[in-house]
Amino acid sequence: MRLTHVLFGKPLATNESDAERVGPLVGVPVLGLDALASAAYGPEAMLTVLLPLGAGAFRYSTTLSMLICVLLVIVYLSYRQTIAAYPGGGGAYSVAKENLGERAGLFAAAALALDYVLNVAVAIAAGVGALVSVLPDLLPYTLPLCLGLLAVLTMINLRGLRATGLAFMLPTWLFVLCLFGVLGTGLIKLWLNGAPDLTPSAATHAGAGLSAATPWLLIHAFASGCTAMTGVEAVSNAVPIFREPAVVGARRTLTLIISVLLLLLLGEAILAAGHGVTAKPPGEPGFQSLLSQLVAAVVGRGPLYYVTLASVVIVLCLSANTSFADFPRLCRILASDRYLPEPFVHRGRRLAFSHGILVLSALSALLLVIFGGITDALIPLFAIGAFLAFTMSQAGMVSHWYRRLPELGGRARLSLALNATGMLATGATALVIMAAKLTEGAWISLVIMGVTLLLFEATRRHFQFIARVTATAESLELGPTRRPLAVVPVRRWDAVALKALRLALGMSSDVICVQVLTGDRDVDDLTPRWKDLAVDPAARQGFPAPQLIVLRSEYRNLFQPLLSYLSELERAHPERQIAVIVPELIERRWYYALLHNHSAALMRALLLLRGGPQLVVVGVPWYLGEWLPERRRLLRSS
Amino acid sequence: MRLTHVLFGKPLATNESDAERVGPLVGVPVLGLDALASAAYGPEAMLTVLLPLGAGAFRYSTTLSMLICVLLVIVYLSYRQTIAAYPGGGGAYSVAKENLGERAGLFAAAALALDYVLNVAVAIAAGVGALVSVLPDLLPYTLPLCLGLLAVLTMINLRGLRATGLAFMLPTWLFVLCLFGVLGTGLIKLWLNGAPDLTPSAATHAGAGLSAATPWLLIHAFASGCTAMTGVEAVSNAVPIFREPAVVGARRTLTLIISVLLLLLLGEAILAAGHGVTAKPPGEPGFQSLLSQLVAAVVGRGPLYYVTLASVVIVLCLSANTSFADFPRLCRILASDRYLPEPFVHRGRRLAFSHGILVLSALSALLLVIFGGITDALIPLFAIGAFLAFTMSQAGMVSHWYRRLPELGGRARLSLALNATGMLATGATALVIMAAKLTEGAWISLVIMGVTLLLFEATRRHFQFIARVTATAESLELGPTRRPLAVVPVRRWDAVALKALRLALGMSSDVICVQVLTGDRDVDDLTPRWKDLAVDPAARQGFPAPQLIVLRSEYRNLFQPLLSYLSELERAHPERQIAVIVPELIERRWYYALLHNHSAALMRALLLLRGGPQLVVVGVPWYLGEWLPERRRLLRSS
Repeated sequence: MRLTHVLFGKPLATNESDAERVGPLVGVPVLGLDALASAAYGPEAMLTVLLPLGAGAFRYSTTLSMLICVLLVIVYLSYRQTIAAYPGGGGAYSVAKENLGERAGLFAAAALALDYVLNVAVAIAAGVGALVSVLPDLLPYTLPLCLGLLAVLTMINLRGLRATGLAFMLPTWLFVLCLFGVLGTGLIKLWLNGAPDLTPSAATHAGAGLSAATPWLLIHAFASGCTAMTGVEAVSNAVPIFREPAVVGARRTLTLIISVLLLLLLGEAILAAGHGVTAKPPGEPGFQSLLSQLVAAVVGRGPLYYVTLASVVIVLCLSANTSFADFPRLCRILASDRYLPEPFVHRGRRLAFSHGILVLSALSALLLVIFGGITDALIPLFAIGAFLAFTMSQAGMVSHWYRRLPELGGRARLSLALNATGMLATGATALVIMAAKLTEGAWISLVIMGVTLLLFEATRRHFQFIARVTATAESLELGPTRRPLAVVPVRRWDAVALKALRLALGMSSDVICVQVLTGDRDVDDLTPRWKDLAVDPAARQGFPAPQLIVLRSEYRNLFQPLLSYLSELERAHPERQIAVIVPELIERRWYYALLHNHSAALMRALLLLRGGPQLVVVGVPWYLGEWLPERRRLLRSS
Repeated sequence: MRLTHVLFGKPLATNESDAERVGPLVGVPVLGLDALASAAYGPEAMLTVLLPLGAGAFRYSTTLSMLICVLLVIVYLSYRQTIAAYPGGGGAYSVAKENLGERAGLFAAAALALDYVLNVAVAIAAGVGALVSVLPDLLPYTLPLCLGLLAVLTMINLRGLRATGLAFMLPTWLFVLCLFGVLGTGLIKLWLNGAPDLTPSAATHAGAGLSAATPWLLIHAFASGCTAMTGVEAVSNAVPIFREPAVVGARRTLTLIISVLLLLLLGEAILAAGHGVTAKPPGEPGFQSLLSQLVAAVVGRGPLYYVTLASVVIVLCLSANTSFADFPRLCRILASDRYLPEPFVHRGRRLAFSHGILVLSALSALLLVIFGGITDALIPLFAIGAFLAFTMSQAGMVSHWYRRLPELGGRARLSLALNATGMLATGATALVIMAAKLTEGAWISLVIMGVTLLLFEATRRHFQFIARVTATAESLELGPTRRPLAVVPVRRWDAVALKALRLALGMSSDVICVQVLTGDRDVDDLTPRWKDLAVDPAARQGFPAPQLIVLRSEYRNLFQPLLSYLSELERAHPERQIAVIVPELIERRWYYALLHNHSAALMRALLLLRGGPQLVVVGVPWYLGEWLPERRRLLRSS
């Protein structure tokens, strides 16, 4: 049992991918936590905006909640259609790219990518925030807690999709069960007993603010409530994770997530209105979240209250996981279209897209560190990306159906109508959110998306350029292949240099040894011994004699004289390849490696970087470790 | 004018070394600041120990000061002899090694090295401490100030010896001038006016503690006062830095340093007794250093007072420089004896031993960071090293003269007597210091010295082992040199791979192409096209056909299958060299380098580290930068 196996799990072979696929029960914790956690903050965000209205808020809040639920159903229906039409995943990016063009697709991708990164930072900060508000002693450790939680999420996701789903199944369904239980009980009580009297505090507010319901306030409240809808696109981006038939599994998962979310949102809206519970001004003493008030109103502050609230905190913390499931898949699709570097395409040891997971983790860690674990400033940047992506995905679907009208007829017309409604609704919502949040920093989101889009395009241009210049239809035509000229930099005459020199004579008939003397060290000029050491023995065996060049380095630099000499050689023999053969003593044990100066490794790197197209660099290793028996003998004899 | 030139100075050629040598006037700031700064803290350290005696301290302090001055003169005379006898520098290490054996030399070297590192940390902390006691607003920035000062010292020393001396000449001689002026004025006043009345506070103390003068207290006071003598060995370690005749320059510098130090110590002792000024308990409110009290007593708190005190703070800060001059030279001598790795031997761009300077800087930065810039805890570790080194150096000189008695006769007998006195005096002092400070942590110094000694020996054993196994008397006997077997890992058929394959056919008649398929990427199996691409063209030109091996990587690892295949190949052809030819796309601009996955560089490193003695690794670079004109054409046409 190796340590890496304990930490990251046993490696999975590529042909084990099918076993990694999941069904709806595991799919909900993997992809649905972002959406489900919305139930904990969406309604609250809306009611907070309506605070100036006091108890009069309920006149509008129920309507607004219904509106959001209708929007949710529209988005749900249209994403059902997307899943069937694009079973390869990629959601908004694939749909927009295919139907609206590359740029539109990339814009949707940039919007989604930004939203995923923000979601991780904001969700983790929210979860830890909820935790430290219960346990104030932990407050000074907010940032370490955030980063720790991020590390745990990263590790779990690196272990693969199935492991993630199984790990999060229990808290997810506990959350659903608790909230259903509490809200159900509440609704039954409400139906049996009728609405309780409004609490005095709510009543006093009632008169105060009734007249303040401007359209702007309502729009703002609607925009805030819509944050409940982020995460709905998650399933459509990840269709291939489901067991075959994948489309069926994905649709069932989406249905499950949306139904639960709808029931929670409706239940909360009705109970809140029924009990006259409204949001409390955040940041003031005695603050309590809306859910906490509702649960307390229904079941009192008993054990069930604490279990329910704990499950809410856990789900808030884990809601970042949706990003971990989707962001790497989005990157994968972008990378296979060459908009991102190749490593995003590869699957790691557990078949997860490790590169994307690590990049997501690094970006959100950066945000958390910059904002010290308190990400309130990021919230206005959030949700715009999701709604822009929704809109573009709907628009893409409209175009998709429009082009299929002739072949599909009536069915397509119905689908088109559905997606067109979705497009109008989400587009209008995107505009509303943008209008409501533009001055709070939402423009930054737009700038980031634009820059990201340009980076995607620049990356692709670069890779296309490489593909074009390296592509070759040529077969192996050799032309006048002459053997390369061999240059061996040697320091002193020892076994390491001798091995390199022997190889050089095997490779080429023109061998030049170069010795750089810096004057500082106790190294002898080889010139006087060269005839005996090399010229005569080579001649005896019928080899051409290797030449010796001694360079003196005035400024004690070992590399510069060699590089200059090589440039001269390149100019003198423009038609030949020059193989520089670098002898290198390799010490495998790290503590010995500290004692050596790695000049061979440095020289290899420098030659490759600065050498020029005629040069090839040959590393000839000479292993010290293999002399260990020899060492023991030497030590015994000394 | 390049930035590196501004920061580190223009590189100096090796033949410019003579111009870098210095005379006594520059030698004092380079080597003497540690000794001179002692005048600012040695007497104070002694008087602090005598605090319990109150004004009665003066009965002993003058005697103890005289004793220290006599010891100083003995040490001076014997180091004069060392300089003449060992003009190569190396001080205690060289003397002890030659006369007392390797181990003794190494122990002296370990003692000195430890003292030099401690000196940097303690001196900088003391200088910054003096500064923040004047400007308390800077207190929270103690550590950054210490590290900043360390960085400045490091930079100046990297610019070479001469630059360092010139930079520090002004503050050094200002310090000497100011103290001479103040102390001289004080002594003249004292001679003209007689001793002033003792201050009342001193008088009240007088009766209180008179009886407390135990021998132990006096021994402790003497040991503390002896810290004034650290830094005296500095000149003897660095004789070669002086202009020829170097011995004369070094001796003059030593004489200058010791005379100034003696005058300062004597002047302080007499004035302190005359004015009844004693140390104040450190850390109590109203604390004032001894020098500050003396200067104020003589010239009042006018401008001269502040200039003098400022020069003291500056010299305290700069006294770390003695270590910067000597530590790298000690390392150099150790490294040329193979007790340290080779880089310590090389001189940097300005002919300074840059490696030693940087290591000293790093070690003392570590100490400063660990102790947060307040190094009081380190003071007991200090000074023992210096006195152990003094003693061993004297003992070495005794043995040196003893062996020369027959040839030199009377002169040697005198020298022997002098060094023997020195040995006994410094040996006794070392014992006293050890006894006085053992429980305060001085044993830690002994442990560190022991461990350092063992590391020196282990390093030398390792390098000797390498020298023995790589040494060869063999000339270039080639035996049956067969051309190597060439293995070319290719990913796809492109210009990069083609270049590598062509080189392989030039090098060897047995070429094997290896393609690793991970299944994840869009890479085609080359098998069906291999005949057209490689076999037929090679045959047409009379070359043996390159073979294609396709490996499928079940766990999507690119390297493991190749390494396994190479091991098989090594077993199948135990008598042949195997050249692995790694094609590599080189992108010189760093921002493009971000986009590539560096698998070629990784593969080269891995093959060298894990390959085995039959393997050589050939890097074949393919430069993207050279295609820039091509890129412009492509961009225009698209």
